[in-house]
Amino acid sequence: MLTLFHHSFCPHSRFIRLATAEHGVEIQLVEERVWLRRQEFLTLNPAGTTPVLVTDGAPAIPGASVIVEFLDETLGHEMGDGRLMMQDINDRIEVRRLMNWFNEKFYEEVSNPLVTERIYKRFMSASDGGGPPNMELIRAAKTNIRYHLQYIGWLVGTRNFLAGERLTYADLAAAAHLSAIDYLGDVPWSEDETAKAWYARIKSRPSFRPLLAEWLAGVPASPTYVDLDF
Amino acid sequence: MLTLFHHSFCPHSRFIRLATAEHGVEIQLVEERVWLRRQEFLTLNPAGTTPVLVTDGAPAIPGASVIVEFLDETLGHEMGDGRLMMQDINDRIEVRRLMNWFNEKFYEEVSNPLVTERIYKRFMSASDGGGPPNMELIRAAKTNIRYHLQYIGWLVGTRNFLAGERLTYADLAAAAHLSAIDYLGDVPWSEDETAKAWYARIKSRPSFRPLLAEWLAGVPASPTYVDLDF
Repeated sequence: MLTLFHHSFCPHSRFIRLATAEHGVEIQLVEERVWLRRQEFLTLNPAGTTPVLVTDGAPAIPGASVIVEFLDETLGHEMGDGRLMMQDINDRIEVRRLMNWFNEKFYEEVSNPLVTERIYKRFMSASDGGGPPNMELIRAAKTNIRYHLQYIGWLVGTRNFLAGERLTYADLAAAAHLSAIDYLGDVPWSEDETAKAWYARIKSRPSFRPLLAEWLAGVPASPTYVDLDF
Repeated sequence: MLTLFHHSFCPHSRFIRLATAEHGVEIQLVEERVWLRRQEFLTLNPAGTTPVLVTDGAPAIPGASVIVEFLDETLGHEMGDGRLMMQDINDRIEVRRLMNWFNEKFYEEVSNPLVTERIYKRFMSASDGGGPPNMELIRAAKTNIRYHLQYIGWLVGTRNFLAGERLTYADLAAAAHLSAIDYLGDVPWSEDETAKAWYARIKSRPSFRPLLAEWLAGVPASPTYVDLDF
């Protein structure tokens, strides 16, 4: 049994939940509030960040990009033609480039400021950095999301999925980050119909259901969050 | 022939220069000042960051972590027992974890603020974000470097190299980031003799020489920068 130290709204944790579900692997979830800097957690991952995957016979695996390479190297061959990492050397560049795009660039410009300001800060004490959301950061993130949505629309307009003709880790990474902020109603879907249609396809996959079922006390989901025909 | 779009003091570019040199691959260097947002460069890498590796027969490869996986997958087997990515599945976790540690965490907390404030800003116009260095950011980075140095010392004290018994991409990533700020004299080597001895070993490798030979007009190197017995 695999254990994932995660937070429900940590976009990188959501990415790994989608990836393990697509691999057909059951995981046990342990919620980690990283801002508490719990000593046992820091022993697992000195960087103090989620997600961390713990499995028998391997050291703790910290960080979405390291976990995903591990999943592909240990379980990828079982997926045959549906492998989430492409096998052609040039296609792998594109899958990894787009994973990094969402896990680093989109995270920095959009999902991290929105999730931190609008969700995490509610659970943090003042000494941990809690308090009212910084509206300036939220406004900047809501401006930034627009060109990312256009970029998704442009990519999917030239291909079937983000990194090519079939579903890869890149789609799961992008959808994971979007899902965390879609809960808050912060994705202006009407601005790009192609991006919206792509997201509807990913969202209707069985791997997505557990994410849609998870609601946060005191923070209602946007009306369209669970709607597959949003 | 491979072409690398880089900047002399971009730590991620230095990492790829070390990695290609260790692979015995010759590269042509093109200096890119990313803050100018040159259109042809954005076509190569829409994220607008260095390094980008361009090679015949493959799409442009953006980002140190994507480039390194590409180098290992295309050339790694030629290195036999000296392969820079470990082959055991558990050892690979540690190599990738530590690459990310330096390319993401150390970069954010130490090398990016120091290089941006002390070097890049000299070359930027006011409208690009140039101007006098922010001393508060520099002070914070110089505080942060201490625990990173201790962490390197602790890791190397239990192993021969950062991620295990032999040289891997993790050592090259760490040394690349350190070298960019060592030029400025910002590494308090005297605080950790084990870390210093490890760096002296990496620095004396032939792959390191081109970095040590590169001086920046108007910004003198620290007295010990090129000294192998610093």
